[in-house]
Amino acid sequence: MRVIVDAFGGDYAPLEIIRGASLAASEYGIKILLTGKKDEIIKTAEQYRISLGGIDIENAPDVISMSDEPRSILKEHKDSSMAAGLRLLAAGDGDAFVSAGSTGALIMGATFFVKRIRGISRAALAPIMPGTKGPFMLIDSGANVDSRPEMLLQFAQMGSIYMSNIIGGGSKVTVGLANVGTEDNKGGELQRQAFALLKESGLNFVGNIEARDIPFNAADVVVSDGFTGNVILKLTEGVADAIIGNIKDIFMTNAVTKTAALLVKPHFKDFRKKMDASEYGGAPLLGISKPVIKAHGNSKAAAVKHAVRVAADFAAKGVIGQIAAAVKPDDQSQ
Amino acid sequence: MRVIVDAFGGDYAPLEIIRGASLAASEYGIKILLTGKKDEIIKTAEQYRISLGGIDIENAPDVISMSDEPRSILKEHKDSSMAAGLRLLAAGDGDAFVSAGSTGALIMGATFFVKRIRGISRAALAPIMPGTKGPFMLIDSGANVDSRPEMLLQFAQMGSIYMSNIIGGGSKVTVGLANVGTEDNKGGELQRQAFALLKESGLNFVGNIEARDIPFNAADVVVSDGFTGNVILKLTEGVADAIIGNIKDIFMTNAVTKTAALLVKPHFKDFRKKMDASEYGGAPLLGISKPVIKAHGNSKAAAVKHAVRVAADFAAKGVIGQIAAAVKPDDQSQ
Repeated sequence: MRVIVDAFGGDYAPLEIIRGASLAASEYGIKILLTGKKDEIIKTAEQYRISLGGIDIENAPDVISMSDEPRSILKEHKDSSMAAGLRLLAAGDGDAFVSAGSTGALIMGATFFVKRIRGISRAALAPIMPGTKGPFMLIDSGANVDSRPEMLLQFAQMGSIYMSNIIGGGSKVTVGLANVGTEDNKGGELQRQAFALLKESGLNFVGNIEARDIPFNAADVVVSDGFTGNVILKLTEGVADAIIGNIKDIFMTNAVTKTAALLVKPHFKDFRKKMDASEYGGAPLLGISKPVIKAHGNSKAAAVKHAVRVAADFAAKGVIGQIAAAVKPDDQSQ
Repeated sequence: MRVIVDAFGGDYAPLEIIRGASLAASEYGIKILLTGKKDEIIKTAEQYRISLGGIDIENAPDVISMSDEPRSILKEHKDSSMAAGLRLLAAGDGDAFVSAGSTGALIMGATFFVKRIRGISRAALAPIMPGTKGPFMLIDSGANVDSRPEMLLQFAQMGSIYMSNIIGGGSKVTVGLANVGTEDNKGGELQRQAFALLKESGLNFVGNIEARDIPFNAADVVVSDGFTGNVILKLTEGVADAIIGNIKDIFMTNAVTKTAALLVKPHFKDFRKKMDASEYGGAPLLGISKPVIKAHGNSKAAAVKHAVRVAADFAAKGVIGQIAAAVKPDDQSQ
């Protein structure tokens, strides 16, 4: 098992990426192939005394940034650490790929260099999010702006397989359709048609779910078009940040509230950990023919370590083979 | 000034509605016309010693519930307290209408009995929501499932006029388009076309806004199609409830954390008040030819009182005349 890691993607690259890769290599014994500027990787590792045991490096002279056009990964930035990693994955030089870099470029590059699974019409970004009762998946969270009902069905199939293999829940993994009400006929044309397909899918479909029930684990896999999913993902972050910011301000009001803060601090740490989805290893890019994981842009070493662990698990469990088998009937009918 | 109030709409009807109406009558001197079962209103007022000074009652024998089909307000439930109130509003027996009942029925009934403003193609539900820096408006939050770009432009026009007159901000009221990124070309066809219209509108348009910035007052008026807006409204409630529930649990852990809770309690009260949008008087149903306010289904007396105050203000400020004037060019071109 070898996981390819983009050393130059993310807000804290390359230092925290190298640190996380090193932790994954030492703690889990996973072989790593780092892509990026080789000299800088070696220099950074020396400077911060990070072990490169179990880690190979493939030189890639360029970096694709958040402000670059996603399409530029195919041309202007084809020698970036991300593009290089994806090509190595396609060539079989590793079993999975992890990047904390530009989401748009990763989707574009993965689709072009690694290709989709046969029968899958669109790849989807599927972050694992924190709910009050544990993690759940949101699919698609923005890989696609426009979606058709059959795409939502495939998102549900892929999400169910990933969740049951990687996160837990086995055959009981539930699927819900994000909608404006719980009644069967809610939503627009897209939702009504997707509902009909999901009902006949053989998946553990619990029906339409309202946005207010999403954080309370209304379903293990929340299916949505990419536009709505992106709003759900980012608004969840925004509302959580706004409320937690307000609560921090309350605790900083005066000496009395600061004392209160000290009293509850250990419990808040547990809460923050529960809210932090990074231990679930970031977002798989489902529908691509090899395992690709998008780590959050703000990933530090621990998040990168978890992403590498999950990427290895994603490969080891044969999730992609299961997805390919699940969509095969559709493929044959084409 | 007389405000018509649906005494039998909402989770705590009729008691809390009558209480709120009575408070509005006594505190603000606003005349009230309550609709609903007259005997029950009088009996409830007597039982709970609620003054009915300044309050008239129009008997309506029926109630439309949350589980009734919205369309039933036109036929099976045409004698409901909500339908009666809307017809009285249309007939000029009051200047504004407040209901905490079924949103769908209210939109249907208002559109049918009271009619839209000439030139407005769709009414929109526009709740006032709590942001970190103060209230903002979300329009449309679910009156329409499918929206066209020109409808979003009208939502922006109506929302700007309401906010500047009723909530504050004057001519500086900003408008943003809810989208999956801040760049000008983001989103699907609907968003790109709406963006072009908003840019040319003469409104104070700040461009596309990402969902994560919505709680931080990225715009005073957040414009959205009704499907996405409904998700934004309900997910904001859901995430806030989930986090606040978690924090309550932390404070209840043991004697130490309970002590901490006591120390910060007064500050949390301020925070809860800030988060509680009910003092902004609920959601105007914009585009209807007379002022209609949807109070939250869980409204208690204070929320009803605020809704009555805002409804009176909505009428007194001539908001509907301003909206009619703003959309007149479109009307003439038809």
